[in-house]
Amino acid sequence: MGETSRATDAAGIAPRDERRDDGDDAIVTDPGAAVEIAVRLAAASGFDRSSRADRARWLTALAEALEAHRDELVELAAEETHLSPARLTGEVTRTATQLRFFAGVALEGSYLEATLDSPDASLTPPRPDLRRMLRPLGVVAVFAASNFPFAFSVLGNDTASALAAGCPVVVKAHPGHPRLSRRVVEIGRDALAGAGAPAAALALVDGFDAGVALVRHPLVSAVGFTGSTRGGRALFDLASARPAPIPFYGELGSINPVVVTAAAAVADVAGIAAGLAGSFTRDGGQYCTKPGLVFVPEGSGFEAELVAALVEAPSQALLTEGIASAFDAGSAALAGRDDIEVVFAGGRAADASAPVVVATTVADFRAAREAFLEECFGPLTVLVRYADDAALDAALAVLEGSLTGTIHHAPGEDVVELTSALARVAGRIVYNGWPTGVAIAWAQHHGGGWPATTASVHTSVGATAIRRWLTPIAYQDAPAAVLPPELTDGNPLGIPRREDGVLAAAPAE
Amino acid sequence: MGETSRATDAAGIAPRDERRDDGDDAIVTDPGAAVEIAVRLAAASGFDRSSRADRARWLTALAEALEAHRDELVELAAEETHLSPARLTGEVTRTATQLRFFAGVALEGSYLEATLDSPDASLTPPRPDLRRMLRPLGVVAVFAASNFPFAFSVLGNDTASALAAGCPVVVKAHPGHPRLSRRVVEIGRDALAGAGAPAAALALVDGFDAGVALVRHPLVSAVGFTGSTRGGRALFDLASARPAPIPFYGELGSINPVVVTAAAAVADVAGIAAGLAGSFTRDGGQYCTKPGLVFVPEGSGFEAELVAALVEAPSQALLTEGIASAFDAGSAALAGRDDIEVVFAGGRAADASAPVVVATTVADFRAAREAFLEECFGPLTVLVRYADDAALDAALAVLEGSLTGTIHHAPGEDVVELTSALARVAGRIVYNGWPTGVAIAWAQHHGGGWPATTASVHTSVGATAIRRWLTPIAYQDAPAAVLPPELTDGNPLGIPRREDGVLAAAPAE
Repeated sequence: MGETSRATDAAGIAPRDERRDDGDDAIVTDPGAAVEIAVRLAAASGFDRSSRADRARWLTALAEALEAHRDELVELAAEETHLSPARLTGEVTRTATQLRFFAGVALEGSYLEATLDSPDASLTPPRPDLRRMLRPLGVVAVFAASNFPFAFSVLGNDTASALAAGCPVVVKAHPGHPRLSRRVVEIGRDALAGAGAPAAALALVDGFDAGVALVRHPLVSAVGFTGSTRGGRALFDLASARPAPIPFYGELGSINPVVVTAAAAVADVAGIAAGLAGSFTRDGGQYCTKPGLVFVPEGSGFEAELVAALVEAPSQALLTEGIASAFDAGSAALAGRDDIEVVFAGGRAADASAPVVVATTVADFRAAREAFLEECFGPLTVLVRYADDAALDAALAVLEGSLTGTIHHAPGEDVVELTSALARVAGRIVYNGWPTGVAIAWAQHHGGGWPATTASVHTSVGATAIRRWLTPIAYQDAPAAVLPPELTDGNPLGIPRREDGVLAAAPAE
Repeated sequence: MGETSRATDAAGIAPRDERRDDGDDAIVTDPGAAVEIAVRLAAASGFDRSSRADRARWLTALAEALEAHRDELVELAAEETHLSPARLTGEVTRTATQLRFFAGVALEGSYLEATLDSPDASLTPPRPDLRRMLRPLGVVAVFAASNFPFAFSVLGNDTASALAAGCPVVVKAHPGHPRLSRRVVEIGRDALAGAGAPAAALALVDGFDAGVALVRHPLVSAVGFTGSTRGGRALFDLASARPAPIPFYGELGSINPVVVTAAAAVADVAGIAAGLAGSFTRDGGQYCTKPGLVFVPEGSGFEAELVAALVEAPSQALLTEGIASAFDAGSAALAGRDDIEVVFAGGRAADASAPVVVATTVADFRAAREAFLEECFGPLTVLVRYADDAALDAALAVLEGSLTGTIHHAPGEDVVELTSALARVAGRIVYNGWPTGVAIAWAQHHGGGWPATTASVHTSVGATAIRRWLTPIAYQDAPAAVLPPELTDGNPLGIPRREDGVLAAAPAE
């Protein structure tokens, strides 16, 4: 691995004294050259020709390496992000679980969609022998998020799903945790090399210019992004404007509307208010699934209960100074509006931000919906007071795409119409729960219409996140020797396949 | 259906005397208004709430209606496109087969990817009850192609797959066959209404301005396009630049490289040459899968055999005057190059275009590859003479994305490396056959990298073409009453589902 190891230092991991850790302007000596080296080595790594079994082993090795360095990494992450060690410890577990989950997805093999059709000359047009499966797209660029320094960063969901697919990954480090990013990629590359994988399949680059160069690089085949609507839109536009456009899977801003029905408030107003207080302030409200807009029945006593629940809520130092300033500005702008009533404002204590709750009416919400539908990242939520179902329907009709929509309802209450209203805009509908805390599962969906994502056909969490990095190939009348084993007669690898239109699960062991 | 019937005439099907059938400038009185009406009626049609069983019936009714009007439609199509009645008769059968194929895909139900995970509180984060499936995206815009007036036009693959998915369709008519388009949509809407479907789920608009308005309309959720690289790129750029971008699935230009190995030429040079002559001249060479670039071994006698096979090849009036002029200009530009030798030129007889074959060397091909990689729509193919495997490899290394790649090889010859070289760029690899004639099958793939398509993750032919029009939804801890039947306990509709990670095929009847 000598050559690869030397390359490690060239692949965007510039010597520490060459960088400033002050945000998107972080300087590397020559971001274009770092990107060029990282992308070319990734493309030439042979990672796309690895077997699924090898990749499953390698993902497991990455999970083990993260866990083995947990204490060191949590300490580093806590320094850089101000998130609590308890939260970060859990996030390391989550990230390792994600890596193992995608190892399982790769091994199981149904993601390949192996499909075989036998010849039939009687059809119009005649059908030859056709065998189709998915294969890796190529080098993937991953833009790490600020708010999950492990789970949506260097070895997060985008990277895990891309590696599982057989795509090497070049990560653009988030400037909010540069030292952690560097350490995780070092640990990751060591783990890959130790497990016999090409370490060049994982690289890190740094800085705004490097990000732009990455999206424009001819050998980059797709981009995963988690971040702001403004930044994501700019990079989506770059990806779309390339001479050869590439898919850009961006998770941007999400308001995550919540409806509390009148019956739910009657049944348990204190419990729901306490749940909301916990959800929108969790870790400083810095979740893409933070409930930012809550429709509450007028006169239900909800607001008093919410204020009571917030009195004890802690302040939280936000991830970066930039995020804290944006939160201050965003919450001040809302609080200063004529059509807003400030329900709770904990004030800012030293370097920590305290929760803010504002309220408005359905009429005012509809009249100024652009202001209320813009995500305010941090511990703030907007209550919209509704008088009756007609008012609620009118309010829900102007919502935009969102990752989640939540309904708090009474037992047995009919929420079919309410489900339809939220399903129009949200990718996941949560009942009598809270959208924060996205489970890792085959059935998970973490996506939604614009502005929640740039690609609502896809997801960034859950098993099908792997599909973003795959493209089909069909072999027509191919000699057996050229076929991947997943497509040869007799199904030697025992994966789920469709043959002549009939889907068959994997044979039992 | 009174209101819907009146709307029929407003929905872009302007009275005949209001239009001129002269290409992209065809005038409708107010294309913006026609689009507005068609899209709003489609969105409000309730088609997205129809059952899969109903949609399968409706697609079958469309297939039957096409076949019932076959003679009338073939006559109209022959007048407008100059394609032969035999070819058009076969294409009606193909189109009806496609509609029935997608009816089967809808009924089978695995395309929904129904996935259920049961709760597990021991995980980090805890897993709730999660149930995921795909659902229709919304109104789909389909830009019809010139070269398949049935199979990739009003009721073609894009429309059939979108309707199967539950998406209403507004078709932008191709100006090359306006009367046929109008008649097919009339027949289609009558068939839908007769089968109890909302006829507004299928509408037609006409003219360049209407196409632009369609791509920009806020209620249009996705676009399918088959046509030129230039036109497709312009519309892709429009779709990407929307305030809320939407997926644009464009099938653009494809060169469809063919490699004839030295051993293949030794084994059957005459047969392969005759096969190429038939494939690139078929119906005037007006196929997206026409082999436009053929790598032939020097000194193999291939060119003499090809010329012999072409002497009897018929001329063909091309689809439109514009296409014929573009073909004349494109073939003249190639023939006039210093690095080109004209191997065969049948000349243009009256209103028909005759086959053209030009040849170059690997060195010249590499030096001026932009000129040779641009698709020349019509009966023209470029031969690239190669001396040995090294030269062939060098030539293949500069290819761009293509729908197909073809290898003619001798029995038992090792073509693994050659397969890799073509698989780098092509979506379907054909062995000892020809890429024209795209079978309708579960395992089909009709896609490829830029410039073959704008979205290489997807396909426009084959069962998975339906996925372009679908977006996921996940239900978390949902009451049974809000779940679609495909996701309820006990699998009452008997579709393939994944439960707790285990894929199960549909239960036997």
